[in-house]
Amino acid sequence: MLRMDLKGEDLPKYWYNIVSDLPDLPPPIHPATKEPLGPNDFYPLFPKECVNQEFSKERYVAIPEELREFYLRIGRPTPLYRAKRLEEYLGTPAKIYYKREDVSPTGSHKLNTALAQAFYAAKEGLEYLTTETGAGQWGSALSYATMMMGIRALVFMVRISYLQKPYRKLVMRLYGAEVVPSPSDRTEVGRKYLERDPEHPGSLGIAISEAIEAAMKDDKAKYSLGSVLNHVLLHQTIIGLEAKKQFEALGEKPDILIGCVGGGSNFAGFTFPFLEEVLKEKGSYDVVAVEPSAVPSLTDGEYRYDFGDTAGITPLLMMYTLGHDFVPPPIHAGGLRYHGAAPTVSLLKKKGIIRSVKYPQEDVFEAGRIFARTEGIIPAPETNHAIKAAIDEALKAKKDGERKIIAFNFSGHGLLDLKGYEDVLKI
Amino acid sequence: MLRMDLKGEDLPKYWYNIVSDLPDLPPPIHPATKEPLGPNDFYPLFPKECVNQEFSKERYVAIPEELREFYLRIGRPTPLYRAKRLEEYLGTPAKIYYKREDVSPTGSHKLNTALAQAFYAAKEGLEYLTTETGAGQWGSALSYATMMMGIRALVFMVRISYLQKPYRKLVMRLYGAEVVPSPSDRTEVGRKYLERDPEHPGSLGIAISEAIEAAMKDDKAKYSLGSVLNHVLLHQTIIGLEAKKQFEALGEKPDILIGCVGGGSNFAGFTFPFLEEVLKEKGSYDVVAVEPSAVPSLTDGEYRYDFGDTAGITPLLMMYTLGHDFVPPPIHAGGLRYHGAAPTVSLLKKKGIIRSVKYPQEDVFEAGRIFARTEGIIPAPETNHAIKAAIDEALKAKKDGERKIIAFNFSGHGLLDLKGYEDVLKI
Repeated sequence: MLRMDLKGEDLPKYWYNIVSDLPDLPPPIHPATKEPLGPNDFYPLFPKECVNQEFSKERYVAIPEELREFYLRIGRPTPLYRAKRLEEYLGTPAKIYYKREDVSPTGSHKLNTALAQAFYAAKEGLEYLTTETGAGQWGSALSYATMMMGIRALVFMVRISYLQKPYRKLVMRLYGAEVVPSPSDRTEVGRKYLERDPEHPGSLGIAISEAIEAAMKDDKAKYSLGSVLNHVLLHQTIIGLEAKKQFEALGEKPDILIGCVGGGSNFAGFTFPFLEEVLKEKGSYDVVAVEPSAVPSLTDGEYRYDFGDTAGITPLLMMYTLGHDFVPPPIHAGGLRYHGAAPTVSLLKKKGIIRSVKYPQEDVFEAGRIFARTEGIIPAPETNHAIKAAIDEALKAKKDGERKIIAFNFSGHGLLDLKGYEDVLKI
Repeated sequence: MLRMDLKGEDLPKYWYNIVSDLPDLPPPIHPATKEPLGPNDFYPLFPKECVNQEFSKERYVAIPEELREFYLRIGRPTPLYRAKRLEEYLGTPAKIYYKREDVSPTGSHKLNTALAQAFYAAKEGLEYLTTETGAGQWGSALSYATMMMGIRALVFMVRISYLQKPYRKLVMRLYGAEVVPSPSDRTEVGRKYLERDPEHPGSLGIAISEAIEAAMKDDKAKYSLGSVLNHVLLHQTIIGLEAKKQFEALGEKPDILIGCVGGGSNFAGFTFPFLEEVLKEKGSYDVVAVEPSAVPSLTDGEYRYDFGDTAGITPLLMMYTLGHDFVPPPIHAGGLRYHGAAPTVSLLKKKGIIRSVKYPQEDVFEAGRIFARTEGIIPAPETNHAIKAAIDEALKAKKDGERKIIAFNFSGHGLLDLKGYEDVLKI
């Protein structure tokens, strides 16, 4: 078995809501009053159905039929591959599998939630969604999704990325999104920063503030986030739900599950459906969250309430954090440059249900090169983190002579990140 | 039906060799003697099995079992999509289908022959293949294929592209290929040009000459070509063979078949298996080859013997040509900048079995934008030519009130060609 496909009719009909199995998940709280926040506090900001899902205790949330059509269109169910050539290269007795989230039109898992959010926004009658983007992976996904749902996207893109990484900006514009470099003159926050420095390079924190402000002051718009929140991770569980079916069809059960973590959305999407068994004490998995050494929130952060954004304008979330004022070094894995980790992922780490590891940039790019040279697909810098951990587990299995089954989420391809390979590997 | 998948076991077991149904195909001839050339003339240059296929009269050529595994790996059978959103946008009664050759790791159909050629080269015991590449699409495919087969690639890349289009160069290097800017000091031809001008921008013609020279002077190497020749087009017929099965499964029969033409490989791959019916007078299709207005070899060229390369060192091929010394304008569709067209494709045009159209660059990029905004996939500049023709046929069907079934080959994605969109569409 090189590749395990599912049929279109095997596309999951429900997302798995891990919150239903985490009754002790600390709620978001108000920064001033410290009171728990509820749906009413979020309705002005996010599409209504997303807020309902954010607070839902339902275990299985139905995926609307029309949305499933869009999932089919982007290549879902995505194939599960066996990394036979990588195994042979490593000389390991372990089996390595990877779930290919790179096959979507924007090249990553991000569309799984972008489509859902844009779907609910369009249904609610909104005209557009605002969001922020760093390198542009999330912005591309939301631009695609809003276009498909017949609404628009207003994307605040960190100015330095806007100038230095023009390709994803072009993807967004080709999809009809309005992309503005942040800080911009479109918001009060943006104007404040521009007054101080007309060439301000921007930051994800400022871009979030601008996107929220822009959404709040227009009735026709709401705001969209690409990770961290419960409803975002919920939408991503389609990855793991498919993977479970694929392993069942193979008659195999993974021992080790691996994903890279920035905010936590691809990691959660891949692992939560397996963790359902663990939380119900019906199964056990070694679940590994992989972080960059430069931004090791789960590995070296504190578990406490902190702001979700850098500027400190969001509610407080209970999570592992390096501090909301932590400035992540400019590593190429832009999607992992987040100071915290999703509250659900953080709680699972706190409980010891998952563990985390961290790797320096050079090591993960070298893992990416090995993967490209064996399996033939060029991974995104973020994905290289998961690959590095999978390789290390496979080598451990070799040392121990154990026939482990390792599975990781191949979250995206690196075709628009080739500069990173050039810089780090000097190719 | 949005997407028609085939199962892995439906992957074709044979390629279709149209030469068997074209008994009057003029042979390649020697430039000086004008004598027809045979296999012995080509064995020193190309892998032996490729030469045998070049001259084969067998109708169905078996695809080796091991090679089929590699086809599975790259995403074959590729899906057939219905362009429902494009149809709705155009308000046409026509149905539009497209075959997705963009899903492979290097993003185009080129792997179909690259894998076959590298497979035969490795079997023959060769250590590496040499080739030339312009923008790098073909070079990327051969780099992937040689890596997968455990041999190497030496790619002569036109210097101006090497300098201005670094991304595909990085793809090739990541896959372990040796990429040298051409003209180079590796060959006599190259050194001659470098002596004249150390900053020589290069051309595809010079790069071909260098790749051939490098292959000829090393027993461990042979040369590989990405289009034009019979065996190359043969390997590509897997596209159309799959598409035929998909239309059969749908219970539909296309009226119009469309592909873009540079050398002719993706066009041939998609249409030849359908043309088998035409040549046997068992069916009829309106088959459209789409060219850039800037390089209209089939549309405005002469049908005569001409050199296959620019420098005039190859055998003479009977084909529609603009003259081997024609300098194609620097349009973004680098894959269509070829002065001639494959002898088989040319003969079919001469016989009136296929027809050709040409479009200016602005129109095809606008078609690409429409496609991206409706179907959500960003096409390669080459592919935009096929899309433009499909749109025009759909609009004609609308005017005539005809429920035509239109099918085109979506030969590749444009993620590494976004600069072209920026330049032409001013996005």
